[in-house]
Order: sequence, then C-alpha cells, then structure tokens
Amino acid sequence: MSVEAVGKSRRGRGARKTARQTRDFKMLPGLKRKMPLTELMDQEQVERIDNASMHILENVGVHFRDEVALEDWKKVGAKVVGETVYLDRGLVRELIKTIPETFTYHARNPANNLPFGKDNAVFVPMTGAPFLRDLNDVRRNPMMEDLNNFHKLAHMLPALHSSAHHIVEPYDHPISQRHLHITYSSIKHSDKMFMGMTTSPKNAEDVMDMCAILFGEEFLEDHPVVTGNCNGNSPLVWDETMLGAMRAFCKRKQPVLCSPFVLGGANTPASVAPSVAQLNAEALSALAYTQVIRKGAPAIYGHYLSTVSMKSGAPMAGTPEISMMNMMIGQMARYYGVPWRSSNTLGGAKTFDAQAGYESATTLMALQMAGTNYMWHSAGWNEAGMHCSMAKFVVDAEQCAMAYRMAEGIRWDDFDEAVAAVGDVGPGGHYLGHPHTLENFQRAFFMPELFDNNSIEQWQAEGSVEVNERALQYTRDLLNTYEEPKLDEGINEALLDYIARREREIPAADALNQDY
Amino acid sequence: MSVEAVGKSRRGRGARKTARQTRDFKMLPGLKRKMPLTELMDQEQVERIDNASMHILENVGVHFRDEVALEDWKKVGAKVVGETVYLDRGLVRELIKTIPETFTYHARNPANNLPFGKDNAVFVPMTGAPFLRDLNDVRRNPMMEDLNNFHKLAHMLPALHSSAHHIVEPYDHPISQRHLHITYSSIKHSDKMFMGMTTSPKNAEDVMDMCAILFGEEFLEDHPVVTGNCNGNSPLVWDETMLGAMRAFCKRKQPVLCSPFVLGGANTPASVAPSVAQLNAEALSALAYTQVIRKGAPAIYGHYLSTVSMKSGAPMAGTPEISMMNMMIGQMARYYGVPWRSSNTLGGAKTFDAQAGYESATTLMALQMAGTNYMWHSAGWNEAGMHCSMAKFVVDAEQCAMAYRMAEGIRWDDFDEAVAAVGDVGPGGHYLGHPHTLENFQRAFFMPELFDNNSIEQWQAEGSVEVNERALQYTRDLLNTYEEPKLDEGINEALLDYIARREREIPAADALNQDY
Repeated sequence: MSVEAVGKSRRGRGARKTARQTRDFKMLPGLKRKMPLTELMDQEQVERIDNASMHILENVGVHFRDEVALEDWKKVGAKVVGETVYLDRGLVRELIKTIPETFTYHARNPANNLPFGKDNAVFVPMTGAPFLRDLNDVRRNPMMEDLNNFHKLAHMLPALHSSAHHIVEPYDHPISQRHLHITYSSIKHSDKMFMGMTTSPKNAEDVMDMCAILFGEEFLEDHPVVTGNCNGNSPLVWDETMLGAMRAFCKRKQPVLCSPFVLGGANTPASVAPSVAQLNAEALSALAYTQVIRKGAPAIYGHYLSTVSMKSGAPMAGTPEISMMNMMIGQMARYYGVPWRSSNTLGGAKTFDAQAGYESATTLMALQMAGTNYMWHSAGWNEAGMHCSMAKFVVDAEQCAMAYRMAEGIRWDDFDEAVAAVGDVGPGGHYLGHPHTLENFQRAFFMPELFDNNSIEQWQAEGSVEVNERALQYTRDLLNTYEEPKLDEGINEALLDYIARREREIPAADALNQDY
Repeated sequence: MSVEAVGKSRRGRGARKTARQTRDFKMLPGLKRKMPLTELMDQEQVERIDNASMHILENVGVHFRDEVALEDWKKVGAKVVGETVYLDRGLVRELIKTIPETFTYHARNPANNLPFGKDNAVFVPMTGAPFLRDLNDVRRNPMMEDLNNFHKLAHMLPALHSSAHHIVEPYDHPISQRHLHITYSSIKHSDKMFMGMTTSPKNAEDVMDMCAILFGEEFLEDHPVVTGNCNGNSPLVWDETMLGAMRAFCKRKQPVLCSPFVLGGANTPASVAPSVAQLNAEALSALAYTQVIRKGAPAIYGHYLSTVSMKSGAPMAGTPEISMMNMMIGQMARYYGVPWRSSNTLGGAKTFDAQAGYESATTLMALQMAGTNYMWHSAGWNEAGMHCSMAKFVVDAEQCAMAYRMAEGIRWDDFDEAVAAVGDVGPGGHYLGHPHTLENFQRAFFMPELFDNNSIEQWQAEGSVEVNERALQYTRDLLNTYEEPKLDEGINEALLDYIARREREIPAADALNQDY
C-alpha cells in the first residue's frame, strides 16, 4: 500500500485539511543574504589563482572530447590540437563577459519565481541517488512512487526552492525513457522551479521540449525556467555527452551548471589553493564554451567538491579544506561576476547518525559563509550520494530554513522598545508576560520542529525517539497532507502525449536498466 | 572492572606502547586564527548596543546581592541603592581599561602554555554534567573514576587545550569536599591547563591554595594558571556565591569568566539585538567589578547563551539567533578590548544522534567565525548539559581539530610547484603517483578518524557500526593507552596533604550530596 493510500485509509479529507492548517507550506521567497561573506583571500591571492588558471588554460589546455565543440572552438579562434583546446586568457575573459550576473528563475506558479545571482541563493534538494532510505528506514532501489514522494516533499517544505529532478533514480522505468517521467514528476507534483536531465544530448532536448509545452517556446527565449548540470571530468576534460546536453540547454537559453567533478588529491593536486586553481580553469573553460554556443545564455559556475582520504581513497565531506575551497571558489565566481553553485549537506555516513549531522551542518554553514547562489544537494544526501534519506530530507530542509533565517540578518525595528522592556522587567525579573515578548516571541527565535529540546523525562514519556524516527514520522504526516498544485489540464495532456510519443520513438533499452 | 583494568588484562605494556606510537597525542599549540571573522554589525550598530547597555547600567542598574561587593562599589563612587548598583558609563569604561587584552596561560608542563586573547583561541571540554553516557552508552550518575577518565581523555586528545574541572560531577564524594578531588584529578591526570571550581568562595580559595602548591604562590601573581567561571543570573543579578568566588580568583590574579546565563526570551527580551544589549550590560558590570577587586586582574567576557522555545520553555541550541548573537558578542568584546568566552557544541539531543551532530557542528562553526577566544564546552556536551557523552567527547575533539586546521588558513608555499604538477599530469590524468602528491598528501586534507567514508559494502563487512559505537571503541582504546604525565612527588604529596587537612576541616555535608 502506498503512503498516500495509507494516509487516505487513516484519515479523511477533513483531517488532512486540519493538519495542513497547522503548518505553513508557503515557499520562503528566494533568500537574499544580508550578512557579510567569509573571504579567505586578499585581492592579490584572487589574482594569483586567476593567473594560474589562465596559465593552465593557455599552456596545458582542456580536452573537449566532442567534434562539434572542437569545430566551435576553431571558429572563435582557439588553438585546437587533436582534442586539446588551448584557451587564451583574453578570449576567455571576452566570452564570459556575456554571462548574466543575475536573472530570475520562473516557476509554473509565478509566486514561486526566484531572483538569482549576487546576494540571492536558492536551496535545491539532492539528486542522482541510486538508493533511498525509505519511510521504514530500509535502504533499497527507488521506484517512481518514491521519486513522486520526494517531489511532493520538496513542494511542501518551505525552505526548498525547487523540486529538482531525479532526486532518486526511478528503477521501474527503462533508463532510456526515464528522463521523460522524471521531468513529468518534477513538473506535476510541485509548482516550484525544477531541474532538467542532462544524461544525453537527446534527453536534454526532450526536457527542453517539455519546458516549451509547459511555458511556451517563446517564453523560454527570455525566461530561465530550468537548470541542467554538466559535469566535467577533472583534470581538464569535458566529454561528448555533457557538451551535447550543454548545447541543448544553451541554445534554448536555459541555465547550465558548469561543474568540474573534483576529488581533491586524486584528480587535483594534494593541496587546497592549487586544487582551486585547476577547478577554476575547468569551470572557466566550460563557462566560456556556453557563450560560444550562444552569447548571453545563462550559465552558472559549478563544481562537485570532495577531498579524498589518502588512507582509503574514499571521498570525504565536512572537512576543513572543503569549507575553505568553497569560500575561495565563491571569491573567484564573484571576481568573474558569474553566479555559482556548490553542494550542500554532503557526507559519507551510511545511516542518519551523528556523523551525518556534523558533516551536513558544517557544509551548510560553510556554503552560507561562502556566498553560494545555487545550494544544490540541500536535502537528503547521505552515503556520499549513494542514497537519499527520507528522514534526513526533512531535517536538512529545516536546517536550510534556519540558515535562511540567519541570512536575513539582525532586526533592529524593535530595539528601543525592547531595551525599554529591560527597564520594565528590571533585575531578577522575567520577560514571559511582558507585552514586547507577547508581540515578538513567534518571530524572535527559530523553534526547530524536528529537534527535541525537552527534558529526558518528557522525551522518555514520548517513547525515547531519536531524530531519525521522529523525522520519518514527520515525513509520513507531511505526505498524508499533500495536495497537488493544479496543473492546467491542456498542458498536462500535452505533456503526457509528448511522453507517449517519445516512448514510442525511444527503444526501451532494458539491457541498460540495471544497477549502477 | 575499571576501564584501565580491562586494558591491562587484555594487552600488555608492549601493546599499549605500539598503540601509542600510531597516534600523536601531542597537544596542538594554542590556535591562532588566520581567517577573517564574521562581523554582522557596522560600527554604528556596535555603538548602538554599547549605548543601550550603558543606558541600562546607568538607569536600570544591576543587583549585586553581596554586602562586600556593595561596599566595594560605594568606595569607587558608584551609586548604590539597596542592592542595586547604578554604574556610570565613564566609571565602567575606566575600570575595564585595565583588563589585559592578551596574556599567557601557564600549564604545569610549560610545553602546554597557551597564548590567549585577540586571535588566539583554546578548546576546553564541557563541564558540570550531573550525568554521563558511559563506555557502554548507559546514562547514569558519574563517579570519580569517570571524571578521571574524562581528564585522561582531555589530556590525550590533541585539540583539547585543558582538562577543565568537573566535566562530570563525581557523586562518590560529598558535595562539600568534592572540589578538592575534582581539582586534584584535573592536575594529576593531565599536564595541560585546567579550570578551578567556583561553587563557593571558600571552595575557590581552596583551588587557589592548590594552585599555589602546584606553581608556587609568587608565580601566581604574574602568571594565569587556572580559570574560574562566575555565572550571572539574568536579568542583571550577581549573587553572593559567585561574587565571593570571583574575589578569591581576582585577588590572586587568576582569570575569571564573567558569564551572564542567558535563556533568550525568558530572562532577556524576545529579540536578538536587545538580548545582546542586556547580556553586554551584565558582562560589563562584572568585568568592571573584577577591576574594583584588583586592578589588572585578568578577566574574560563570558556568557552561557541559549534561546528558549516559546512552545515548550526548553532551551534551544544550534539555532540561527544563537549563531548571530555569538557573532555580535564577539564584536562587543573586541570593541572593549577584552578576551571572550562562548559555549561550544551545545545541544539538546538525548542521545548521540544526528540532532547532536547538527547542533554541535553549527555551534562550532559559528564560534569559529565569531572569533571566540575561550571555546568552553568544546567536547562531550549533550542533553542541554545534563550529560557528558564519552562517545561525543572524542568526536567533538576531532571536530575541534578540524576547526583548528581551518583557522590555520590557506597554505601557499607549494602553489607554484603544484600548478606545475597540473601540467605534468595533463587532461585526463591522475595525481596519485605524482611527486607533489607523495610529498604533500599527509598534510593536504584532514582525514577524520571517527567518520566512516568507506563504501557501504566495506562498512557492512566491518559490522555496520554507527559513529556512536565507533567512538566508544575509540575511547576504550585511548584509555587503554593512557600514560600519566609525571607530577613531582613532593608536589603530589603536598596536594594530598592539603586535601586531607581540608577534608578534616570541612563537614562532609552528606545531606547535600544528592541528585540535582
């Protein structure tokens, strides 16, 4: 029986309505940071990284393993030898100049549109997990119903700004057709912005077509509505799949994340600043290429960033060097005047234990201080991305809400009134009944719903439940109160027709539909 | 059977020696921050807080519930009405001017001396827990053997700079005599600096006497060797016990933490900036009094800081307002030129679950960015301070080591060499065998011992152990390899003689020795 079915059998529409009314599911507006950022480098050090990156682009070069890209580069005057492209710093600077520093993301519900870039940030759930930890804390392969549930949760949790795309991989659809159903689920179950699959150039085209059905082809031309991610293979390689997908997005003027995939120490030097120099060169090469594809196309400086344990070869997260690199990369992106993406709440814990908490909180705080614009992987990530945890998903989303509150900065509007209250209450008094307290307590201090701060006696009386189980119960409750945001019937049918047609055209390729 | 006995029965001296050799127990030198701090307020806002605090001190006043203090205040010209002291801002500024901005903490092992104040920070374990979660994860009242074990751990863990004092309350000693044995355990089991009990003025005198035995009476006069904590009762009250203990420390020129005990929203206004204004007034009033007691005595701006859930009345931690207040308080302390203390790794979780991880990591990162000098409660805190967790103690200490690494900042010494390596390796290569990697991998990226980043298959093969159990095993291993730092035999005997004499003098007061 599905979660929804459980909900329906247990409580009627009235009960769901009541439960809904006790919580506010309205999306928090796009975060606008009002706090200073942590800048670890002075101007000279920023320029030293820039210079090293440009040196790498000019002298070491970048592999573009794709015939079209190599031809494109030749046309704009880059030196191409085999698959190696040597990029002159003047050309790179000229090209990236046309990347918009800010833009607005458009959602199918205009109330969920989001300003993007500079001081603005968005929280986007994790994606790409081949496993989930489900509502019973069982680790297994996900199905489409699981992905639907994650999209519903992303829709309901106020601090999440996007339903993303394949939060988990739905194994009950053939891999060659999966992108169609993933995209449909993102669109159908949430009216927030979403992400678009880049698993092949053709898949990316399908996503673009579905966006055109949803928003209208002409609308796309001037309105970013979706984000594609293109990973680089560090060191210094971009492959055909990613470059083809990038072209599909850029041609339709939809934003792409240009994301070197860094395992510090394995595919970069074993050192912080030089790793940033290499990553920066890689990101610049792809950012520049987006503008070769189409001048003015929105593009986002990206990366996936971990360091590698030199004892075991395992990727690490929540470590000091990753925090520092994020802060440095933020400075580089601002130096070039392009928005940037990082990865939030990363960690390698196998369960939702204390390790997961430390890693995620450290990363979130570092990203906040680094000034990340696109806070990807903001909910659910665990086990180095191998699974998405339903419990962690809702706790991470509450952590994002807390980070959001912090980014809003200090309120001063009640300062004089509250200082006067200190005089009213006087030494040895208390504030619980004071008019200022009664007026302000609800907004004064964030009260996490998923953290238990009660006495141990009360906690024991309530069953001695740790955060993992509390979060799972919270998730069940949320899913029981989910209400689908209405999608225009004509658009819905057009999307379903499109999917049906493409399914007839694309071989199911069942041989590929296996674990990865 | 004690932990030590278990160790002895299982492995001989040779095995312990081998285990010791695999780990480095040398204390990390006092942390010197090389990263910028997060300053949420501009100069005008800092002055607005200062002005509000001074307004409170001048017009609302502070209760000093202690005859000696009231007399002392009259002598320096403060207006005293009943137990209310009204402090003119000129007098406050004049008094706090003589508080040293920096000094050196002296440990019985001079290699463990610590520069303090300004950019320097120290990590000190949690203290005051009436319960512990022990090596079997059982929550129970602690005994002296448990406290000994915590002191041994504090001695061995490199990022901890102090053995503190009553990390847990040893219930097998009468409360009236407990401070003697706590102090002795701090001194005996570690040669790092420690803290001194302030549970009564007389107890504080006993600690001072024991410090005089350890270091020599004259040495104390010019060398801070111990720290006492004096809590205020917010709003705006200092009581007789704390003020008497403060006098005992200040007269011997030993540092005290002047710590308002803030439950934001209950004993301060329900608002961030006004809470800081009140807390700042309270801290200033005690800091000023330290200089009335003895000009030039070292004193530290302190506080215990939580916000109160307006739903349940429970204290909260790891919330955004606490991070912001810490950042603001750091600015105020720097404005006055005094070192400051905050509380690290706070949280309300009942077990060492993910909640504990999130709360602790958020707090640690905020304190680091706030520029805290005295990072108290840096290891073991859980359940709003009601228990100290042996598992969490070692994990927190590793987190402090990571924060330490981050504070060291970016290394640039190998930059050109490593950028040259990018050219050697080239697009699509890897760095694992490159000479730069071989030379640098050990220092390049922090590799946490207590976080598991292996594949799930390997983790399962090793027994599917979560971080709590891993940490307990780590703690058992550490305790088995402990070696006591030699204490001069004459000093040891003098300390034991002193304790024996004081025990004869102080009634055992068993009636008081009950749960609290």
